[in-house]
Amino acid sequence: MSAPTAGPIPLANARERVAERMWAGQKRLVDAFEEIDAHGRFKASSWERPGGGGGTARVLEGGAVFERAGVNVSEVYGDRVPDSIVEHRPSAGGLPFYATGISMVIHPLNPAVPAFHANFRYFEVGDGADWWFGGGADLTPIYGRPEDAAHFHGALKTWLDRHDAAHYPRFKDWCDRYFYLPHRGEMRGIGGVFFDDFTPSGDDGWTAAFALVDEGIRALEEAYLPLVRRHKNTPWTDEHRAWQLLRRGRYAEFNLLYDRGTRFGLQTNGHVEAILMSMPPHARWQFQHTPEPGSPEARTLALLQPRDWA
Amino acid sequence: MSAPTAGPIPLANARERVAERMWAGQKRLVDAFEEIDAHGRFKASSWERPGGGGGTARVLEGGAVFERAGVNVSEVYGDRVPDSIVEHRPSAGGLPFYATGISMVIHPLNPAVPAFHANFRYFEVGDGADWWFGGGADLTPIYGRPEDAAHFHGALKTWLDRHDAAHYPRFKDWCDRYFYLPHRGEMRGIGGVFFDDFTPSGDDGWTAAFALVDEGIRALEEAYLPLVRRHKNTPWTDEHRAWQLLRRGRYAEFNLLYDRGTRFGLQTNGHVEAILMSMPPHARWQFQHTPEPGSPEARTLALLQPRDWA
Repeated sequence: MSAPTAGPIPLANARERVAERMWAGQKRLVDAFEEIDAHGRFKASSWERPGGGGGTARVLEGGAVFERAGVNVSEVYGDRVPDSIVEHRPSAGGLPFYATGISMVIHPLNPAVPAFHANFRYFEVGDGADWWFGGGADLTPIYGRPEDAAHFHGALKTWLDRHDAAHYPRFKDWCDRYFYLPHRGEMRGIGGVFFDDFTPSGDDGWTAAFALVDEGIRALEEAYLPLVRRHKNTPWTDEHRAWQLLRRGRYAEFNLLYDRGTRFGLQTNGHVEAILMSMPPHARWQFQHTPEPGSPEARTLALLQPRDWA
Repeated sequence: MSAPTAGPIPLANARERVAERMWAGQKRLVDAFEEIDAHGRFKASSWERPGGGGGTARVLEGGAVFERAGVNVSEVYGDRVPDSIVEHRPSAGGLPFYATGISMVIHPLNPAVPAFHANFRYFEVGDGADWWFGGGADLTPIYGRPEDAAHFHGALKTWLDRHDAAHYPRFKDWCDRYFYLPHRGEMRGIGGVFFDDFTPSGDDGWTAAFALVDEGIRALEEAYLPLVRRHKNTPWTDEHRAWQLLRRGRYAEFNLLYDRGTRFGLQTNGHVEAILMSMPPHARWQFQHTPEPGSPEARTLALLQPRDWA
């Protein structure tokens, strides 16, 4: 993707302002997850990046509702934009950079509750000569229900439609193409939205992009938490659990084989525990497993195709 | 790696002769694993490759001794050597090819029994203008014991020393470098041997390489099965199992992030079930898990470094 011409950054403290939204989002989401879980508590692990910056991973494991929930915030900077960024943003080559982001992955214990992933990020090059935002959220149901998918996509569409009616269809399509396992011919879940290299042009481009991301972080609670509350007390059996672990095997395959953030982070000596907090707490693989035709498991697989949910 | 000049292939039916050794090895190993397991039975799944050839995966799941054991044999051919091969064998570009191989991954149920992987392969280009063998075997103990490592490496060294005393140190070093998780700074296990692009020069080069591989397939039983028999009745607890699943998480990371066969197979639309039979049946990830200093788990981690075992 070629870089659009970035408009000016309107504030001297733009980085601090974006990062403050990331840290505030982490606190708010961690509080919300703890409140729903009632039992589990987040542990914090802070790390420093040798080249500059660092972050704090906050992870809850073994909760009543969340088998694993991780919310990570990082702020990193350095003298030279990493090569993998320069590849698709050549004008950034050789310049100093600053990046901040929030990412979260939620693996609920109850197979009735979908897994959830979201991240938002901001990248600034050479004292503001170039900048972009990116982000997105997607849902991975173990047992798919159209009404859950409609709620999730509807919340994301409501957020994006406040900014530009063209965003949701474009970002939804981007997500459908990204969270896809080509070797299985399956989507990871029922999608959501995903965008990158977001640099609206014009004098107020930065302010508009910042508002989009700020509201996006806030929209996550409305998109996901109602689904947790809706299903967290649904009774489940060993068969449901076994299917959940198989689906998490697919999740592990996606993260390790295809996820750009995971592969980039590991290849650039990122903080392993913060990067791999996205992995499922338990996963399973079984030879030639095929659900019974007509079963809830087979119906879930049938939902894992791009579809108009909102 | 540049290609050595390949000597002539001495037989018109060389391909059939190599493939026969692969199929015979599969039968012998499957029989041996079933005999040890006493309870589990292998299922077979044959597949065809759209471009030419196919294979048969034989997989045992849920056995008394083996939670998952897979032994796969394939014979594939086509009009043009795949790009990923041409990259390190440029002279093969544009030529037809034939390849056959056997690969196996064993994930025992009992955490006292090490996991095991081995494969052997033969590649022939352009009606014998070029050819090479490759292969290897490595051991992944959940609870490492120096005497097991010494037995395993000793059996591989005995096999290789019959051919060339230089093979074992070279192939062991190759294995130590290959089965390594750079993001963890850990080896996958205690190594073994690994070689590729093996094309001994001279008129009897092919015959010598074939003998090496033929005996290598036969050497696997002596290398691994005594360790299964030694530990399969060792009592184990939930704590042992939990550690086993964490170690299998590392195994999954290696396979999906780094293993060339897995990544090549998935990227070239290989048979997913045959490729991913290498995945552990269950795996686990835990945030910042560190074994107690001095515990058997910590002592195992300390063994996962290149060391002179034989």
